[in-house]
Amino acid sequence: MTRALELAASPGVPLGPNPRVGCVLLAPDGTTVAEGFHRGAGSPHAEADALARAGDRARGATAVVTLEPCNHTGRTGPCAQALVAAGVARVVFAQSDSNPVATGGAGTLRAAGVDVEAGLLADAARAVNRVWTFAVEHGRPFVTWKLATTLDGRSAAADGTSRWVSSPPARRDTHRLRGLCDTILVGTGTVLVDDPQLTVRDEDDRPLPRDRQPLRAVMGVRDVPPTRRVLDDAAETVLLRTRDPHEALAALRARDRQHVFLEGGPTLAAAFLAAGLVDEVVCYVAPMLLGAGLSAVGDLGAATLTDALHLDVVEVTTLGAGADTNVRLTLTPLKETV
Amino acid sequence: MTRALELAASPGVPLGPNPRVGCVLLAPDGTTVAEGFHRGAGSPHAEADALARAGDRARGATAVVTLEPCNHTGRTGPCAQALVAAGVARVVFAQSDSNPVATGGAGTLRAAGVDVEAGLLADAARAVNRVWTFAVEHGRPFVTWKLATTLDGRSAAADGTSRWVSSPPARRDTHRLRGLCDTILVGTGTVLVDDPQLTVRDEDDRPLPRDRQPLRAVMGVRDVPPTRRVLDDAAETVLLRTRDPHEALAALRARDRQHVFLEGGPTLAAAFLAAGLVDEVVCYVAPMLLGAGLSAVGDLGAATLTDALHLDVVEVTTLGAGADTNVRLTLTPLKETV
Repeated sequence: MTRALELAASPGVPLGPNPRVGCVLLAPDGTTVAEGFHRGAGSPHAEADALARAGDRARGATAVVTLEPCNHTGRTGPCAQALVAAGVARVVFAQSDSNPVATGGAGTLRAAGVDVEAGLLADAARAVNRVWTFAVEHGRPFVTWKLATTLDGRSAAADGTSRWVSSPPARRDTHRLRGLCDTILVGTGTVLVDDPQLTVRDEDDRPLPRDRQPLRAVMGVRDVPPTRRVLDDAAETVLLRTRDPHEALAALRARDRQHVFLEGGPTLAAAFLAAGLVDEVVCYVAPMLLGAGLSAVGDLGAATLTDALHLDVVEVTTLGAGADTNVRLTLTPLKETV
Repeated sequence: MTRALELAASPGVPLGPNPRVGCVLLAPDGTTVAEGFHRGAGSPHAEADALARAGDRARGATAVVTLEPCNHTGRTGPCAQALVAAGVARVVFAQSDSNPVATGGAGTLRAAGVDVEAGLLADAARAVNRVWTFAVEHGRPFVTWKLATTLDGRSAAADGTSRWVSSPPARRDTHRLRGLCDTILVGTGTVLVDDPQLTVRDEDDRPLPRDRQPLRAVMGVRDVPPTRRVLDDAAETVLLRTRDPHEALAALRARDRQHVFLEGGPTLAAAFLAAGLVDEVVCYVAPMLLGAGLSAVGDLGAATLTDALHLDVVEVTTLGAGADTNVRLTLTPLKETV
């Protein structure tokens, strides 16, 4: 299973709506017959990949898979039936597939007389597909809220200048994180005030090709003039004409989105926070004091300290050096209300 | 000199207005005749300590001292004359004494025919007495501003509750830092709103004895009712009836204060920051979001980002664990305006 997990996490697989899966076929004597992994949407699933490599040698083998074999026909056929057809005698998988359209593979296998064992290294398998697992289990994308603040919690000066709160190393880091998400979400307010392009740029500040850009999503009921940069052809853009975070995430989920990078202003951030729809916070702290200006987050209705939204510090990282130093805090909201 | 610096930094010396000094007397053959160091205000200076131990063996010796021997009579006699009287042939010192009342020792020694060498490991010697050196050179105490904020830069909720923004490990750390300063400074506003005792408490939350407490200083023109805790007898307290940071620091300097721990609210902090009178910032960031409430710093007159007060990140430390985690940032203001 450890080898199957390595295969699942093979580098170079493009970001997509599918989970990353690895599969190892073992002969009855324990030797490896074939290995396979999923290379992204439209290409064969890990099991199909391994079965194709194994050919007749799959008969009587044990398939070790990181995710419960799927039970549905999408762009590729159901893996559970493919394993049965190939004569695989036993299937050991790590994570159960709770995706409503794909679940049931274990049942299909057992009904066909295949020996099935579930749960081996399930936590490690869930970690490989952390965001996919979250989206499947919660029925909505995972939301990472990114904010950049001064030491005194300002994300823009009184005149609205916010572009350079973060230092160049922090901005490069933001582009790296954007590139790990499949959607960048802002409100119409940000588009109207800042006119950001919302693309992923590389280390040399060049935009990545269009097919490697996350979806740009703008939510809110105000009109977005067609001249705004977010509507250029550097990447795909969707306008979500709602103010409701739940509705916006449902619309994105309907487009197979798993990981939203929330980069809106204080009002949008407050709406998501108040709705409990922020799953991770990435905060870049710039070593400067403004003493005035726009707060990083709008009113959360916390009148007293006990109403504050408490978070867990997951990681603290110093980015850059000298005057360019920024501190990145990664946090997750505490689930229980304190 | 390395040994003399070790002596200067001997543990157990109480905090006081005097610099820490070490002295080694070497015989002409290079062997050590005697060592000495200063043990705090009222006790012999390092040179006097070493000379007393050496007795007649000081004649013809070389005195290696971390600070230029003093030239004035305070609670103890001038060291320059004591070295001459003891027949010391040569004095090597690290840091020059720029304290106006004590300076001139090198001249006195040279006039008496003693061979004098200055500047050996001067930077290391300055580091031993970082705050004393600053206070002597700037004619005012070194100011460390401590603030505790939420992730969104709030130091208190809308109802004024601020007591527990910091986690217990951060609060213990604050007491440790208070204990390294000789003065804790707040404004009358903090005294009237929060009624803090402003004492140093140990790991078990017990106050240290009165003779180890920093001076409590309250600045502002509003009256402080005698029932306020800052006026109890746990420590000495001074009321500085001014709103001017320069005046407040001058009054504290006149009381031999070297290191002020500034713990006031946003108005006091803004006054010191705007006057360029903050030399170090210690910021405890609590992983919580308030979305409203009191900002950590008042208006600095920065209307645009380029007017922001920029700082250097000196250190980032994570304190505590789990829900008690706070992140401590230590920063120094950049001297040039960006």
